[in-house]
Parts: sequence; C-alpha cells; structure tokens
Amino acid sequence: MAPQMSPEDSIALIKANLQEVLNPEIIDNVILKEKRPLKVYWGTAPTGKPHCGYFVPMMKIAELLAAGCEVKVLLADIHAFLDTSIIPLEQVAARAKYYEFVIKALLTAVGVDISRLIFVLGSSYQYSMEYTRDRFKLDAVTRYHTALKAGSEVVKTSAEGATIGGLQYPGMQSLDEEYLGVDAQFGGVDQRKIFVFAIENLHIVGYKLRAHLMNAMVPGLGDAVKMSASDADSKIDLLDNSADVAKKLKKAKCEPKTVEGNGVVAFVEHVILRALKLKNAGPFIVERRDQEPLSYESADKLKEDYTADVLTPQLLKAAVTVQLNNLLAPIIQAFQESKEWQDVEKVAYPPPAAKVKKEKKDKGDPAKRAAAAEARKLALGEGGVEKVVEDVKKLDV
Amino acid sequence: MAPQMSPEDSIALIKANLQEVLNPEIIDNVILKEKRPLKVYWGTAPTGKPHCGYFVPMMKIAELLAAGCEVKVLLADIHAFLDTSIIPLEQVAARAKYYEFVIKALLTAVGVDISRLIFVLGSSYQYSMEYTRDRFKLDAVTRYHTALKAGSEVVKTSAEGATIGGLQYPGMQSLDEEYLGVDAQFGGVDQRKIFVFAIENLHIVGYKLRAHLMNAMVPGLGDAVKMSASDADSKIDLLDNSADVAKKLKKAKCEPKTVEGNGVVAFVEHVILRALKLKNAGPFIVERRDQEPLSYESADKLKEDYTADVLTPQLLKAAVTVQLNNLLAPIIQAFQESKEWQDVEKVAYPPPAAKVKKEKKDKGDPAKRAAAAEARKLALGEGGVEKVVEDVKKLDV
Repeated sequence: MAPQMSPEDSIALIKANLQEVLNPEIIDNVILKEKRPLKVYWGTAPTGKPHCGYFVPMMKIAELLAAGCEVKVLLADIHAFLDTSIIPLEQVAARAKYYEFVIKALLTAVGVDISRLIFVLGSSYQYSMEYTRDRFKLDAVTRYHTALKAGSEVVKTSAEGATIGGLQYPGMQSLDEEYLGVDAQFGGVDQRKIFVFAIENLHIVGYKLRAHLMNAMVPGLGDAVKMSASDADSKIDLLDNSADVAKKLKKAKCEPKTVEGNGVVAFVEHVILRALKLKNAGPFIVERRDQEPLSYESADKLKEDYTADVLTPQLLKAAVTVQLNNLLAPIIQAFQESKEWQDVEKVAYPPPAAKVKKEKKDKGDPAKRAAAAEARKLALGEGGVEKVVEDVKKLDV
Repeated sequence: MAPQMSPEDSIALIKANLQEVLNPEIIDNVILKEKRPLKVYWGTAPTGKPHCGYFVPMMKIAELLAAGCEVKVLLADIHAFLDTSIIPLEQVAARAKYYEFVIKALLTAVGVDISRLIFVLGSSYQYSMEYTRDRFKLDAVTRYHTALKAGSEVVKTSAEGATIGGLQYPGMQSLDEEYLGVDAQFGGVDQRKIFVFAIENLHIVGYKLRAHLMNAMVPGLGDAVKMSASDADSKIDLLDNSADVAKKLKKAKCEPKTVEGNGVVAFVEHVILRALKLKNAGPFIVERRDQEPLSYESADKLKEDYTADVLTPQLLKAAVTVQLNNLLAPIIQAFQESKEWQDVEKVAYPPPAAKVKKEKKDKGDPAKRAAAAEARKLALGEGGVEKVVEDVKKLDV
C-alpha cells in the first residue's frame, strides 16, 4: 500500500465507488496477511480513439494506484484485431501505443503516482506455446453455449451470429489473469459474465481464483454530447482545446432537474468529484453571476440542488467546462511535448480514406499521388501484416 | 512420379479407387506442367489403438506413394488431446509415436517404397506464432454456424453441444494444408464439409486452393467382427496372431449372397485386391476342398460369385484369413524386432485402470503398490503435462 495509508484505508479505497466486488477476501488476505501490494489487471482493446468516457475507468485505476496497488493495463491488441479484422495489424500496434500515451497522461493529470502502472501488450504472451496450450485445454471443455453466454454483453455479434474468434474471448480473458500474475481483475459490470466464467473455469487448467472489481455502468459524458449532435466527431476528444470543449458541452444533452441518466451530472459524480479528492484540490465550485458560488464535496448535495433547479444545466455546464479543461490541459501539453506520440497518432488514426480518394484524382502532382498511395496502403493494410508483428514486438512494454 | 510410371499412369493411380476428387486440375498441373511429385497430406488423430480398419485409408496412401507422391501423415496430437482431454498429453505423445510405427509397418507390408513418406506432429508447428496468428485471423471471420456445419460429421459433440475446441477443427485443418506445404489433402468422404470449408476460406488468410481426394466410406472389417461379438476386444488388432485372426474372422458377420454392407467382402475389394495388385502378387485365390480354386482379379467377378453363392461365406472367410495373416505377419515381425515400439506401446496403451485398482488393494506388496501408483499416475496424468511437451518435441519426426 501507499506509505501514507493504513492497510484498512487502502482496502477501503480499493473497494470504494464500485458496484460489486466478487471474492473480496482475496484482497483482504493479500494486504493484511501477505502484506504486499495488490496486483490488479484492467484490459482494454485498442480500437477507437479514446475520449472523455475513458475518465470513468481511469478514476478507479487512479484510486487503485493511490491505494498502493500494482496495476497492469493489458492492451489487448489481438482482441482489437479480432474485433476489427479489416484494420491492419500495423495500425492496431500503433493504437496500442497511442492508448499507452493517453492512459499515462490521463492518470498523471489526476495527480497519482504511476510508478506501479505497467503496460502489457496481449501479443507479448498470447502467442506463446504455454498460453496456446492452455487455450487448447480450456477450449476442449468449454461448450459453445457457455462461451456465448459468458461473452454476450461484451463480444460483438452480428445477425450472422458469433464468430469463433469472439467465442474465445472469455477463455482468453480468464487465462490473462494467470499470465499477468494478478490477484484481481477490474472492469465494468458489463464484464460480470466473463468474470464468473473465469471464477468457474480457471481451476480446470489448474489456476487459482481471483477477486473481481466492477464499476457501475454510468451514462457517459461522451454519449450526452454525441446524442446532442448528428455527427460522431462531437465526442469530446482528450486532445480537444478549451474552446471546443466549451462549445461541445454547451450543446450537450442535460435535462433540467433530472439526475437519472444525465451524463453531465454522472461525469461530475464519477470523475470530477473523485479527481478533486485524489488531487486534494478542494470542493467542486460552481460560479454564479450575482450570487455566492455553490460548493460541493459530495454527489448527494449536488444532485439535491440539481433536482431543485438551484443548480441549473447552464451553471453546471460552465463549471464542468472549467474542471474538464483543467483535466485535459496536462494531457494536451504531454501530447504537444512528445514527438513520438504525435508520430504514433498519424499511423494509429490516419485521415479517412475518402480524403485519400479525392487526392488521388489530382494526377498532376506526383508527390501528392505518392502520399495518397501511402495513405491508402495504411488504410488498406497492403503488405503491412508481416511487418507489423515486428513492430508490435518493438513496442516499449 | 515413380520412375517406372508415365505421368498419365501416375495421375490415373492417384485418382483411382476414390469416391470424389475436388479440383483435380491442380493434380494434373503439378504432374504435367510443374513436373514434380504431388504433395499430399493425410491427417489422423492418435487416439484409440489402430486396427484392421486402418488398411482402408492405407491402401490409398500406398497407391499415392506408388504413384510417386510425397505423402505427409499429420499425427494430430493436439486434436487427439482436444478429443480426449482426460488423457494426459504424455500418453497422446506416445500414441502418436505408436501410430508412426504402425503406419510404416503397414505400408511396408503392402510392398510400397516409404522413402517419400513423412510424419509430422501437429504440435511441431501448431503452437507457432505464425500458425496461432493465422488461427486468430481465420477465427475472427468464421461464424459459429459455418464452423459447426463444417465439422458436423467429424467433430465429436455431446448433448451439451459443441466445444469451443471442436469448433476450431475446420479452421486448423484448413491451415494445416498451408503449413504442411501440400498440393492436396486426402481423407474419407466424411471430411467433405471440412474440405469445402478449406476451399471456401483459406483464401481469406491469403493461402491458395488445394485439391481434395476422398475415399468412399466402406463397411469395415472391424465393424463386421465387432458386431458379431459382445466385447470390443474382438476387433482385429494389427498385432493379432494368426490363430486369433482365424478365430475372430470365423465369428465375423458375413451374410450369404449379400455384398451390400458386407464388411468381409468390402475388405477384399478395398484392401486385399488392391494390396495384391500393388505387390504384383497375382489374383486373389479361394481354395476349395473338392474343386478347383476360385481366382479373382477384380471385385466385380467376386461379387457376382458371392451373390450366386458360388463363393460362400465360409470359403471367403478362409481365404481372407490367409491373406490378412500375410498382411499382418510383417507388422508383427517389425513390432517384435523393435524394442522402441514395444516400450512406446506400454506408455501409449497401459493396462486399464480397473486392473490398477485391483492391484492397489494388495497392500502387502510395496513393489506392487508403487507400480499401481505409477500406472494410476499415467492414467490420470498427474503432473505429466509439463513434462510431456518436451517429450513431444523429442519425438523423431
């Protein structure tokens, strides 16, 4: 645990702000009896560009780090590839690296020590003979219906049904607990069925039971913003400047007097209040033009005022804009200072193929034609597959 | 092709005695245009002890070798493990080795040159990163229903449904064609749906189309023998002595005047006549007590005589006994001359666990107790898993 924290406080912070904890005695045992840092894993598939919604799981990870845990972030590049098999592996590798930059910056922005934060690429061990053999063993005794049920809230399926790749998710995610050498896995409560699968099946291949920490599913700020506009670009990107954040929040859906399903209120409760607490930065202040500012230490009081319309959507949005820009400022700064991150972004999220096609028509300029061909190659993944495995291996994990 | 055979004769022998050939032009092209030996793969999961039923696919493999083909026998040890996950991997490894001994002896017994016969253990490449990556790619786009349908005639399922392991069969068997570097795959017509899966899906991971050779499903001699007796031990083992063969054949089901579904007649048609031809050993002779012997070069004439009861079950069985013992004699001799084969047999097919339990009760003899414990360990696979992968690697393939 962190040096300044008692074992009891550490355990309390680990279990705080969660909807459910399975096998909590494993946590108590590690901290009270084994007297060592709890090892926790959180997995994410590096697919789309991370946005403000990432702050929600990050707050729990920040609390785990603050409580002295060792946190392993699994960048599930193989899973990302299975999900988006049309994206070349090269791009998945770059996206994994992009996620690492973002997560580090995000956690630094809420002021926690990231020296016990470890990034692991799925491909760094999920291709090994040992892991593959364990998959064979587990798959040999896992029935289709069991795997389908376990993955039903997480694995993408289409009208054509589940893929064989998707059906291997629950088994792999279970084995990851052993291969990452952790005591507990953290995830949203949408992962519950996979967690139960791990609890019920990992012993079959001879591995021990882990604790499972589950975040509630909260209405996202991203969704609130997105629902208010027609295009998906209106999500708040973690690199958006303060003017864009203000503009997007202004348009965000935020029903007066209603806290249920309100993404802006949820963002204050699950991100801003917890970030201020972690940073020891005092209460959440809402400035008012002609009156004393409102001040909140807890979500309860804030929700009460919001329901009574003392705290109006306009007042709330303005205060959230200030706080969100405070959170984003160090992330933007870190991006601007890192040439490596900027280069990775170009490969990870190249401009859409539509733009490339337009450029292609301009036959007069050979340089433009070459650039367009390169961009197309990236988008389509021509010959990139072989190279990429090497790239994946080279990444600093 | 074999030096003494014209390209046309070689192609004719490759395609002979099959129910179906898919994409035969691939075969013609390799032999007539590329002018090199056709490479063919046949896979078998080393599970139960091979018996006389193995002569049927072996006759085709013998013809392929006689036609100058390079034949790779895939000893699918991982598949065997997936099928029989309660059997420890150590035993699977020993069974793979046992199969290799049997197949070599069997083909030598029908007089073909086995210098172009290559044995490959599945585990020698199915754990590799490249293969695993290709499995991920193929599994990512393979729907459950497609895999289920493809494997429906081959993969074991129970009332609880298919396993995730079983659903990976068709994809793996398709990739094996590429990883074994062959032009064609040979199998029973029960493999047809998997072969079609390979034809329709291998291009997705960038690999070329192969030809597929299919044997008809014939009533087995083993089944005829088995159906006539209550216990499964009555199957004719490839190491049975001539007296046992005579005894078992005498009891074999062999309905007079009926050739349809007759395992003894089928064995003559699909094994004995073809073996005699390959060995250049003249016609199939049926001795009679008071008359001239009957003599057959073809199945048609034999079936005609059998239907007319000129060739009676008794006459036929006596003649088959002579010919089968001729085929088995060199196999038995090879086994008796090989200490290695004998040692492998003990690990591959240890005495049944029931006997072990009986021995356990005899507490008076410590040596017996230790032997029983060892046998139990083998049967249950206690701690054998780690060791076995090394054993698998050490095998001479």
